[in-house]
Amino acid sequence: MRSSVLFYVSYALCLCSGLLCLLFVSVWSSCWRGGFSWDGSALQFNWHPVLMVSGLLVLYGYAAVVYRVPFTWQQKKLTWKLVHAALMLLALILSILGLCAVFDFHRQSHIPDLYSLHSWVGICTVIVFSLQWTLGLWGFLFPCSPLWFPGALKPVHIWMGKAILILSVASCISGINEKLFFTLNGNSSEPYSSLPAEAKFANSLGVLILVFGLVVFGILSKKKWKRPEIETESVHLLPHENSP
Amino acid sequence: MRSSVLFYVSYALCLCSGLLCLLFVSVWSSCWRGGFSWDGSALQFNWHPVLMVSGLLVLYGYAAVVYRVPFTWQQKKLTWKLVHAALMLLALILSILGLCAVFDFHRQSHIPDLYSLHSWVGICTVIVFSLQWTLGLWGFLFPCSPLWFPGALKPVHIWMGKAILILSVASCISGINEKLFFTLNGNSSEPYSSLPAEAKFANSLGVLILVFGLVVFGILSKKKWKRPEIETESVHLLPHENSP
Repeated sequence: MRSSVLFYVSYALCLCSGLLCLLFVSVWSSCWRGGFSWDGSALQFNWHPVLMVSGLLVLYGYAAVVYRVPFTWQQKKLTWKLVHAALMLLALILSILGLCAVFDFHRQSHIPDLYSLHSWVGICTVIVFSLQWTLGLWGFLFPCSPLWFPGALKPVHIWMGKAILILSVASCISGINEKLFFTLNGNSSEPYSSLPAEAKFANSLGVLILVFGLVVFGILSKKKWKRPEIETESVHLLPHENSP
Repeated sequence: MRSSVLFYVSYALCLCSGLLCLLFVSVWSSCWRGGFSWDGSALQFNWHPVLMVSGLLVLYGYAAVVYRVPFTWQQKKLTWKLVHAALMLLALILSILGLCAVFDFHRQSHIPDLYSLHSWVGICTVIVFSLQWTLGLWGFLFPCSPLWFPGALKPVHIWMGKAILILSVASCISGINEKLFFTLNGNSSEPYSSLPAEAKFANSLGVLILVFGLVVFGILSKKKWKRPEIETESVHLLPHENSP
């Protein structure tokens, strides 16, 4: 199969599996968990999985592969750096809102924060993501960074970008698993171990998250699909040679 | 910092964090969870985290980076292919034993198998790992595979290798999280949310697993650290040009 055909097949799989993740997490929260509210109740908690899957996983993944789409290669790199940064900022804002949803629910329900391994991994992911976004803005878009900085930052930015994806997948999987144990084994007539419809559905969301994560990861890892570095235009607000 | 110095720092971090993972999971199972047995009791379950972390994560990670160590580049590639395959086989055997431990415990305790998302991700990881090992043996070591096969398999083998690492990290994190909710919220005087010493210790094991996974992933991703493909010797039992 030609490399460009394989790219578009992978890219279509990335877009579709991402949309399916959004659909599944929204249906789970709205149909099985009672919908949404912002009043400190369990309905406020329901924003947490939706916002984390939307921001920290799907939008993050879409933003990460934006440079790989061949039609963007004909256009100025600066334009796509701004698109990449803007999508990542939106992903970060959604993730922080997702954290606010769960912290506010915990506060109202007198549940301690940040005790489970899921919460430790999740909070680390968002902190590393914030750091990555700030350093990226400073190194690749702001004119005030020293000239050596973008070149030194680039390999770290690429590695951290993939690391955040791995952390995000681990956070989502452990979070869905934890939520199912809490709700189905709490006061449900059908415990998790009897694999009721909700458990099958949310487990399938977990599988979709893995598929999405691995497809994004595969697209990022393929050297042939990188944007060719042949342009001579300035790709920085001030001329820096390196960009992610 | 010179690339080779950075490699040895990363490699030392990989070895040390892997050993710390083994130490932490063994101490958790033996000191807090009562030790080991193979009699269908909860003590048999304790083999599960130890064998999965040893096999599916640490030994797998060590085997994955074995080609990156510069002193091996002076030696025949076939030797290190055999070391890689043997270490991976041992990792696979330990993982399968880890699955046997939990299935046997479930059978004796009348607990259903494979209902949680953790178990779905874990079993997928071991199945993909078995497939990867079998295909690798056939493609890169067995003389009976067609000549085109190793070249076609190589990029898939490399991508699947990293994918298994991601799946393995997600399995371990969700499994530790699940076990802590089960045991500490079951009949313990100190629930998980009060963050007793055991919770802090096992959460730290989770953090160590992430550090190990990300370091291995970083070593595998750095192009400069790949074994140079300059040798002319046969690296296959029958001459095949490609190998992982």
